[in-house]
Amino acid sequence: MTTETTTHDLSDGREAQLLSIARQLFARKGYDATSLRDIAEAAQITKAALYYYFPNKDTLYERVVIESMASLLAEVQAAVGRAHTPTEKVRAFLRASAESMEQRRDQWVAGSNAFWQAGATGRRGLALQHRDDYEHLLRQCITDGITSGELRPVDPAIAGRLLLSGLNQMARWHRPGGDLRANEVIDQYLDIVLMGLINRAGPPARPPGA
Amino acid sequence: MTTETTTHDLSDGREAQLLSIARQLFARKGYDATSLRDIAEAAQITKAALYYYFPNKDTLYERVVIESMASLLAEVQAAVGRAHTPTEKVRAFLRASAESMEQRRDQWVAGSNAFWQAGATGRRGLALQHRDDYEHLLRQCITDGITSGELRPVDPAIAGRLLLSGLNQMARWHRPGGDLRANEVIDQYLDIVLMGLINRAGPPARPPGA
Repeated sequence: MTTETTTHDLSDGREAQLLSIARQLFARKGYDATSLRDIAEAAQITKAALYYYFPNKDTLYERVVIESMASLLAEVQAAVGRAHTPTEKVRAFLRASAESMEQRRDQWVAGSNAFWQAGATGRRGLALQHRDDYEHLLRQCITDGITSGELRPVDPAIAGRLLLSGLNQMARWHRPGGDLRANEVIDQYLDIVLMGLINRAGPPARPPGA
Repeated sequence: MTTETTTHDLSDGREAQLLSIARQLFARKGYDATSLRDIAEAAQITKAALYYYFPNKDTLYERVVIESMASLLAEVQAAVGRAHTPTEKVRAFLRASAESMEQRRDQWVAGSNAFWQAGATGRRGLALQHRDDYEHLLRQCITDGITSGELRPVDPAIAGRLLLSGLNQMARWHRPGGDLRANEVIDQYLDIVLMGLINRAGPPARPPGA
């Protein structure tokens, strides 16, 4: 990971405010449907003033997508690095991701919308690279678990996709402040995926005479 | 389920063509970002001619979202009805859904975009009802499996969400004609979710001297 995308100067309050407005619009309307004019209007500044910070949508893509992917990747790498066994690493990866989603929901949805919608930006390649690095890390933890004998020999790509699908869909239905924290949902998903649903103990004993 | 939404007259080729164009635009650009003007332009007809078939976006929502949800619901109900045990019913539900997604991908993505984006249509309530009936059927199969002792006592809503997340995310990454059919991915998801990833047989025997 390059440091240039994560150490960008965020001390300018106006820039941070514009980024926040852009994220809200990308999250709500989608990336393609949001114009620089929409952002200027929502921020109540002129388009010329907006151009000073973001001369085009590519620069916004850089800040909204690339930076949030880079920081998510750094967070899961750190969490995986602190865990010991492959199974613990899988758990750490998903908990760190859920934590990130819960804390920065707008950023997550905006980044996801922009990632899937933006066709022509020159930075699409770097976004794909971050996404691949992220998915590859989870797959590698699963592969290590299979190699060590902790996990069954399944297709690590398919197992990783299932877990990431559960995570990504949470951005659609999970609301902060609801019954379950994002981490608690992820823990239940992991329980199901690791232990399976089949009841190996067999059916419960029936009461006598039933 | 009402039959009025599924037996609509589709014999009019022009109407079917306009619906197909609308679905493609909803799938690509999203529901909110697609105007009746966009659809008229893509179909190379006047807006007035389009109004003859679809006087407003609500009527399109009806045809694109409500009808496809109603037919998906009917398909899974039939598939579940043919299966015998709760576990087989869970499998039948997901395989029928994957089949439907693979055969009508545009319709699936368009319906999903419109379902999540359209805020103000009067038919939103019916769409939610279909969605709830669909999700409830899967949860019921899981609950029946827990009651019969086939499945472990997990939260059926969470287990259902995980499986439906895997299914819904497939619309993003799975391409017809790729290495795996949608059904084959679903079978691997089900294998993981039913059996779990933990290797209960323990680590593989190490070669002597290792």
